[in-house]
Amino acid sequence: MIDLTGVLSGIGSSLPVLAEVNEAELGPLVLASVLLSLIVIYLAAKLGGELCARVNLPSVLGELVGGVVVGVSALNLIVFPEGAEPVHSFLMDFVQLTANLEPDALLTVFKSQSEVVSILAEIGVIILLFEIGLESDLKELIRVGPQAAVVAIVGVVVPFVAGTVGLIAFFGVETIPAVFAGAALTATSIGITAKVLAELQTLSSREGQIIIGAAVLDDVLGIIVLAVVASLAKTGEIEITNVIFLIIGAAVFLVGSILLGRLLSPLFVGLVDQMQTRGQVLISSLVFAFVLSYIAAAIQLEAILGAFAAGLILAETTKRKELEEQISPIADMLVPVFFVTVGAHTDISVLNPLNPANREGLVIASFLVIVAIIGKVITGFTVFGQEGINRLAIGVGMIPRGEVGLVFAGVGAASGVLSESLDAAIIVMVIFTTFVAPPLLRVVFENDDNDPSGAEATQEMAEATAD
Amino acid sequence: MIDLTGVLSGIGSSLPVLAEVNEAELGPLVLASVLLSLIVIYLAAKLGGELCARVNLPSVLGELVGGVVVGVSALNLIVFPEGAEPVHSFLMDFVQLTANLEPDALLTVFKSQSEVVSILAEIGVIILLFEIGLESDLKELIRVGPQAAVVAIVGVVVPFVAGTVGLIAFFGVETIPAVFAGAALTATSIGITAKVLAELQTLSSREGQIIIGAAVLDDVLGIIVLAVVASLAKTGEIEITNVIFLIIGAAVFLVGSILLGRLLSPLFVGLVDQMQTRGQVLISSLVFAFVLSYIAAAIQLEAILGAFAAGLILAETTKRKELEEQISPIADMLVPVFFVTVGAHTDISVLNPLNPANREGLVIASFLVIVAIIGKVITGFTVFGQEGINRLAIGVGMIPRGEVGLVFAGVGAASGVLSESLDAAIIVMVIFTTFVAPPLLRVVFENDDNDPSGAEATQEMAEATAD
Repeated sequence: MIDLTGVLSGIGSSLPVLAEVNEAELGPLVLASVLLSLIVIYLAAKLGGELCARVNLPSVLGELVGGVVVGVSALNLIVFPEGAEPVHSFLMDFVQLTANLEPDALLTVFKSQSEVVSILAEIGVIILLFEIGLESDLKELIRVGPQAAVVAIVGVVVPFVAGTVGLIAFFGVETIPAVFAGAALTATSIGITAKVLAELQTLSSREGQIIIGAAVLDDVLGIIVLAVVASLAKTGEIEITNVIFLIIGAAVFLVGSILLGRLLSPLFVGLVDQMQTRGQVLISSLVFAFVLSYIAAAIQLEAILGAFAAGLILAETTKRKELEEQISPIADMLVPVFFVTVGAHTDISVLNPLNPANREGLVIASFLVIVAIIGKVITGFTVFGQEGINRLAIGVGMIPRGEVGLVFAGVGAASGVLSESLDAAIIVMVIFTTFVAPPLLRVVFENDDNDPSGAEATQEMAEATAD
Repeated sequence: MIDLTGVLSGIGSSLPVLAEVNEAELGPLVLASVLLSLIVIYLAAKLGGELCARVNLPSVLGELVGGVVVGVSALNLIVFPEGAEPVHSFLMDFVQLTANLEPDALLTVFKSQSEVVSILAEIGVIILLFEIGLESDLKELIRVGPQAAVVAIVGVVVPFVAGTVGLIAFFGVETIPAVFAGAALTATSIGITAKVLAELQTLSSREGQIIIGAAVLDDVLGIIVLAVVASLAKTGEIEITNVIFLIIGAAVFLVGSILLGRLLSPLFVGLVDQMQTRGQVLISSLVFAFVLSYIAAAIQLEAILGAFAAGLILAETTKRKELEEQISPIADMLVPVFFVTVGAHTDISVLNPLNPANREGLVIASFLVIVAIIGKVITGFTVFGQEGINRLAIGVGMIPRGEVGLVFAGVGAASGVLSESLDAAIIVMVIFTTFVAPPLLRVVFENDDNDPSGAEATQEMAEATAD
């Protein structure tokens, strides 16, 4: 939009009378910076994705690695001025060089640009979870609900206990930091797992639905665990009312939105059928998804849970197919922004063993990585009453910590309870589990193809693909 | 994206140690506010659009009116804290009420939210112009180029001279403010006209292509005119180097991008055909469109000109059809954000004749509206060498001032050269021409259907529809 003062910057700073509208005057420069960021993000996503596709790795891994390359670890193009420390962006230098950006306006434009890119990424993961919800099967999800719940709970309890106790016993870490690191081990990145499953066309398989169900529950559990350890880190006590509020809120939201949504969805379809203007199905569905996302965010859950619930509900309507087709280009446009920025946020300098300061962290990290992988892989073997299911695939699907793990690391760094080496160790664990899970998932699902005992799952994969 | 400190706000303000990451902590609240804004924008767009569609008016008019209803003129839901004066947003009140937003963080979140919504709107109009470019025919556009150039130039010169001279002669306005108001009369909103043409399926008709060509040239001329009058307003002189720079830049950009683009497009298609990952056509095309948009913005033209050029070039490739299908849902998602925010920016309180302060402005406004309409309608009659063309439709297509007119009003208000009544008069002229053009365009194109002399154009309309 050419806003009220949009063209002003075209006239340059030759209008001192306009000093009071200085911020709005920067609008076109913010737009230019956002466009340039999107160009870099898309190039990184496509280069990484195509390279991975050629060596038979999931393309989402390429998007993450592409993000690392353009992010704070290497090229410093996509960086986020969030913390107290000043960060340097070569992308902003380029804007300054080419688009007449005054040096004293650089930081303002930089902050606005990175805020917009962050929100685009968040809308991207909302669209992704909406799409995952659309491609999921609510009945199947309810049927495998008990198994998913066991997977989620075991996947939280085992890594948490093993991590915390191990850190205290083997590394002499104090209780509160150990609890914090243990908590970081509980996360599961629903976005990364779901994207890989979708790429492997195993999202609608029984394994896929157990993983998605468990990852959604794990997201809720993660929010609760984080609230608990953060209040523990601050006061040494657990604010029990806050925890109860979160648990009740999550339960009421998930059950309530789905029950109410199913009741109201015929009304929704009727309304959409009455509409005559372009994009009626898409816009009505987005409004529905954003309303549930807003409610989820407002009650301090994650917005993505609302989008997932909305997708699940609309998947049961007659509009599913049309909606899937229309949401697909939007996902293509916005989802890479999410994965590339997750990569861009990741500082892989902590992985360098040549830096002596990293060594203590790397030793602890090795322990955390082992606990992180074993603690999730065993969850697949807790699945009961499912003959011939690919248990290894379920466990592997829960491994990536991704953006959720980064949240724990970020809160830990900010709260000051973590030593530098422990904080670095958590980040290494997050990086390792995030980047190793997509290729592992492909391997375990492909082995399944050749394994006669996996016939049922393969059959369902084929059905899902044909769906 | 759940950013590094994304979940922090879920824990509330109970972590004073995190004071330094206060801004990042507000991320989820900014996201929630943006989601809520999008919900309001979509509801306004769909309610307005559907109502208009039912009374046979272009739905874009409904989106503009929907924007006025939710904007600064009425409900104060979608407002922009741009100027020096504090503005009040009921939407932010709602966020505060429902999503645990602290009062002292409200302004920060409000500003971020409105910045993100503004950029989404700007990306929306970029996507719109890209889509318009895709649906345009470069050869036809070049063929009608001379006619379009005459329409654009006459449509700038006549309203400018008539407006400026009239204001001086009849209303005793001083020279510089009169020149400024005259300049505001020269604008044409390419977005509004193009959207209406697309809705009427007359975009590919010869009339449609002349209007689009003229509107694009008018956009360039408008930037030059604005630069001239703004420097005149400031120093009383015209900065001739700046003007020459703009003219050369615009010419080199438009001709160069299209020539170079046509040369490189086989390479582009070859590259896309090599790609294996999801969204390859869409993302490659968006990168191309954003690169040209960035260049256009960097040389102080409008980003939308770059997007239009990119659309024109890609329309000539074999990917056109696939791309049109994929860009359509993205346009459905983002374009309404543009039109609703244009409406939301418009303050219609200046139209109230019961307020004595408005009366002088309304009298001048009546004059400006007459000049604005006549000055553009006659442009259609300057079209030479085109038998049986709908001349009235071309003139009417140039009427809406839209967001470009608002830029002039904004610069005028900020520069201080305009009296309050003259500034109000310009805004009234912008509102009137913007809102009257869509229904008028429908009328003149529909009359054409029943008019035997318009047979050729009708034929072309049918071809365009079948295209």
